[in-house]
Amino acid sequence: MTGTDEQNYHIKEYHKFYTSTEPLVLKSGDSLSEFTLCYETHGILNGDSSNAILIFHALSGDSHIAKHHNDDHPGWWDVLVGPGKYIDTNTFFVICANTIGGCSGSTGPGNINPDSGRIYGSAFPDITIEDMAAAQKILIDYLGIKKLHAVIGGSMGGQLALSWGILFPDSAHRIVLLATSARLSSQALAFDIVGRNAIRHDQNFHDGEYALKGVVPKNGLAIARMIGHITYLSAEVMRDKFESSRHNPRDIDTSFEKNFSVGSYLSYQGEKFVERFDANSYITLTQALDSFDQGSTAEDIAGKLRNSGSKWLILSFSSDWLFTPEDSLKITEALILNHIPVSHHCIQSSAGHDAFLIENDSKQYGTLISNFLQPDSENNANCCNIEDTNTVLLPGRNDLSFFAQLIAPESSVLDLGSGNGELLACLKGKGATHIQGLDIDFEAISNCVKKDIPAISFDLANPLPFPDNHFDYVILSLTLQAVKNTEQILTEITRVGKQAVISIPNFAYYKLRKMFNDKGLAPVSPGILHYQWYNTPNIRFFSINDFEILCDTLNIRITKRYAFDTESAQTIDKEINSMADLAVYILGKAG
Amino acid sequence: MTGTDEQNYHIKEYHKFYTSTEPLVLKSGDSLSEFTLCYETHGILNGDSSNAILIFHALSGDSHIAKHHNDDHPGWWDVLVGPGKYIDTNTFFVICANTIGGCSGSTGPGNINPDSGRIYGSAFPDITIEDMAAAQKILIDYLGIKKLHAVIGGSMGGQLALSWGILFPDSAHRIVLLATSARLSSQALAFDIVGRNAIRHDQNFHDGEYALKGVVPKNGLAIARMIGHITYLSAEVMRDKFESSRHNPRDIDTSFEKNFSVGSYLSYQGEKFVERFDANSYITLTQALDSFDQGSTAEDIAGKLRNSGSKWLILSFSSDWLFTPEDSLKITEALILNHIPVSHHCIQSSAGHDAFLIENDSKQYGTLISNFLQPDSENNANCCNIEDTNTVLLPGRNDLSFFAQLIAPESSVLDLGSGNGELLACLKGKGATHIQGLDIDFEAISNCVKKDIPAISFDLANPLPFPDNHFDYVILSLTLQAVKNTEQILTEITRVGKQAVISIPNFAYYKLRKMFNDKGLAPVSPGILHYQWYNTPNIRFFSINDFEILCDTLNIRITKRYAFDTESAQTIDKEINSMADLAVYILGKAG
Repeated sequence: MTGTDEQNYHIKEYHKFYTSTEPLVLKSGDSLSEFTLCYETHGILNGDSSNAILIFHALSGDSHIAKHHNDDHPGWWDVLVGPGKYIDTNTFFVICANTIGGCSGSTGPGNINPDSGRIYGSAFPDITIEDMAAAQKILIDYLGIKKLHAVIGGSMGGQLALSWGILFPDSAHRIVLLATSARLSSQALAFDIVGRNAIRHDQNFHDGEYALKGVVPKNGLAIARMIGHITYLSAEVMRDKFESSRHNPRDIDTSFEKNFSVGSYLSYQGEKFVERFDANSYITLTQALDSFDQGSTAEDIAGKLRNSGSKWLILSFSSDWLFTPEDSLKITEALILNHIPVSHHCIQSSAGHDAFLIENDSKQYGTLISNFLQPDSENNANCCNIEDTNTVLLPGRNDLSFFAQLIAPESSVLDLGSGNGELLACLKGKGATHIQGLDIDFEAISNCVKKDIPAISFDLANPLPFPDNHFDYVILSLTLQAVKNTEQILTEITRVGKQAVISIPNFAYYKLRKMFNDKGLAPVSPGILHYQWYNTPNIRFFSINDFEILCDTLNIRITKRYAFDTESAQTIDKEINSMADLAVYILGKAG
Repeated sequence: MTGTDEQNYHIKEYHKFYTSTEPLVLKSGDSLSEFTLCYETHGILNGDSSNAILIFHALSGDSHIAKHHNDDHPGWWDVLVGPGKYIDTNTFFVICANTIGGCSGSTGPGNINPDSGRIYGSAFPDITIEDMAAAQKILIDYLGIKKLHAVIGGSMGGQLALSWGILFPDSAHRIVLLATSARLSSQALAFDIVGRNAIRHDQNFHDGEYALKGVVPKNGLAIARMIGHITYLSAEVMRDKFESSRHNPRDIDTSFEKNFSVGSYLSYQGEKFVERFDANSYITLTQALDSFDQGSTAEDIAGKLRNSGSKWLILSFSSDWLFTPEDSLKITEALILNHIPVSHHCIQSSAGHDAFLIENDSKQYGTLISNFLQPDSENNANCCNIEDTNTVLLPGRNDLSFFAQLIAPESSVLDLGSGNGELLACLKGKGATHIQGLDIDFEAISNCVKKDIPAISFDLANPLPFPDNHFDYVILSLTLQAVKNTEQILTEITRVGKQAVISIPNFAYYKLRKMFNDKGLAPVSPGILHYQWYNTPNIRFFSINDFEILCDTLNIRITKRYAFDTESAQTIDKEINSMADLAVYILGKAG
């Protein structure tokens, strides 16, 4: 750090600096002849350096991820990082560095260019997200950490974490991405471009050489920040924040319009930002963000991630329109294409892109991250004790041990409606090569992640995001009667799986039939069909025979059928359509 | 028009000018001592001046709504307006005027202030949407039109049309709103505010007195336009437009960033806009747009619209995030609160806010507008011939004449799942005081509108947007079995209606029961239940007895029951739960 840098940036007692005097060769071919990273750490690095977690900040963040003590000023992720918190600094050694190109202690356009002795300004080279990650890899090497327990990042930080997984495929056990994408949408690009236009057309910008002129392009930078701020919030959260006070703006000291409460808020955010951020850094970082491009399709992205040796957790937020849930799903699909373990959940949130930084939804995303960083592994084979093939199914999902027997060891398996992951845990214990859970429910995903079972949240109303024959087995247990698109889901499971294993309730079970016939009332069964007609999740009512006729119509081959009376705990082999209340099938492609 | 005005604006041969030398007193109390409107007309005003339609342009539009001849330059609504088009100028006399405050021929900040002899600039008064509408009312009076056949407007033009309905409640037979709202969302306000900040902080703005300095705040205005442009498109349409050429921007002559195809597009739009638009007009009009506020709730808006004597058609577009479908629904609800006839449809579109200006979805919105402007009225009583109370229902919806007999004349009626509006047309013919259709399907809404039956598109998965006891009758015909939220919909119809009339299929009909019992297959009936189990829209299977038990559970009183065997065309009064395949109920509140 030079004297000038210190003027620009207030150094705190907990700031650490690492300066590399080796040149950093950039992706463009250009290079930084030396660079400094300002970083902070929390917790203690253990003896074998195995507990380190590297966390990347977002566009306007810095190294101050969390408070170092009670009187410290707030960190940007105090919600998650600290002693006893979701990312527990009693256990983990957390590192967070200001990125190169930034303006909070690490080398950026506001620093002295050692080659010229003058402030970089417009001479600061174009850098990429990959360059930012590469600079931090040098820091991690310097700290003597061979393999990180995890790297984590959201938004631009998520792009760094994704780059880490691509560039250094064996240097992190686990990678967490929040609210990020493999490349920005055109809409998101557009907002960044307009922001840069505002900065560059500020009369004080002077083609980036404003420092030489002793001025600051404050107006342009504030306007860029205002645009950014709108995109970080959702329309819903803006309504909640500003509608009740719509016509009562705060009377703040600003050169910007302060009509409407939302106007005074934006002005305040703009004015505040220019006090702490450098315009050239803003341009440098947003250009890196915009040019980041790992492909537009899951296949493209999969090509980049082929060698990843990490486990992944990918989180998105339903109201995030800057980095959308679809963006996250695309990265998830890419990892699944490569048979790399990945969990994904879209958190239902009204908070927009900023959701990953604030407390509202932290119980959900914090729990998922915590479960992912510290899974239990002792549960992994506890359903496989019962090896008797005559085991009769019990109500609920206790059909697991039976299912487990139907599936060859060392197979790849997708479980649709995987619940808490018991079956997959069992199959994993039996040597499955690739397991993937899928469920719509947060608790299910969270419990799978806690068991170290990869699971993704997905609505079965949509076609499955997997290629043909991707899994040896696809499992659909007691779910067919609850989905509306019956034909689609049957076609999908036999497309995606070489084989499908499916269990169905039989609504022609003799007790139900008799009940309906005698009483003329929709049957309410004490067994697996225990709902009222008006509140049951079941919306398709069919018999074993109905199902088999449909399989025939859809050209799906029934390889094997097992039928049970779960009430009397018996296997049924005669008069199945009357006597069984549940059937299990192995389905294959039509010959 | 003064010489200076002509310099600013190129006068075409079809431009007409009306200058009022009476002062226009503005809502603020301020006034314009005189004002000119530049307007254009299409078609011929008929003898009794009854065929005039006034159309309001959006923010950046002008009087040139459509071509006057084949070689004319394009108008902004050529898609809809012209001979033989949806708004047929062979039939209608269409008027479109540039709004006051604008910069395309009507009096705005770029014109000479007659009081000072200098260009208004910053001295142009704050005007409101209501002021703009009032100025055009003076033009309509001048043209000798006592009552317009219709006023129509989209976006800001929709706000003018809404204002027209509030200010001049008896001066238009019909009002069409497209893609508009009673007030902007906080998110939409925010974008306008940032745009104005960019203009006002342009070094050439000079507090609005740039004309005196002989400069133009081009950069700020272009940036405001770029922000606007993003909000007029949806993320989806931006993807379709720019993703395939993402890294191949057009090489245009611009001072703005042209990285990425979306960057060159925005630069082009910005550069083009400053050639034709005035910065002070942009500020004046967006401030009017932003301060327009008819209330945040349907109740508030209803208070303003209490006296409206018009029929209304309100159209929204599913991907419009600037003026959302919810905004349109709120105005619709307000009209319904006042028992004012209103139709509403949300058009499924990927085109964003601009959808109402372009061809993609014009078949839908054009047809609805055309049907609304020229409804057939001869069909209004053609189902009510059969007066025999013993008429037996036939399969399908031929239960109308029966339904019609159950409903007292001069009642208000809401029909849920109103289809093509036959029942409501019949009830209208019998003197119903207020009829309202509701359906999810475009064709249904369109056909109702063609019959002059008010109908709104709505998904019954949501609670009904009407207050308690708002209708004398709510009708739900053969729909209960197809909705998932059974309890909610039953509670809702008996909340919103003083009485409800409901028909249900009986799945315990003896033939179905026997079929299921004997064959063990989900029954496929030749009558009203003619689907396969896996593709039927029906998802709830219940009997007459089941239904009555549920009514009891929900504390809903069954006032009257009628049961039918529609196959044998008989009324059933014994063993109803076996012998009837359809029942009709009148429901009331529990005593």
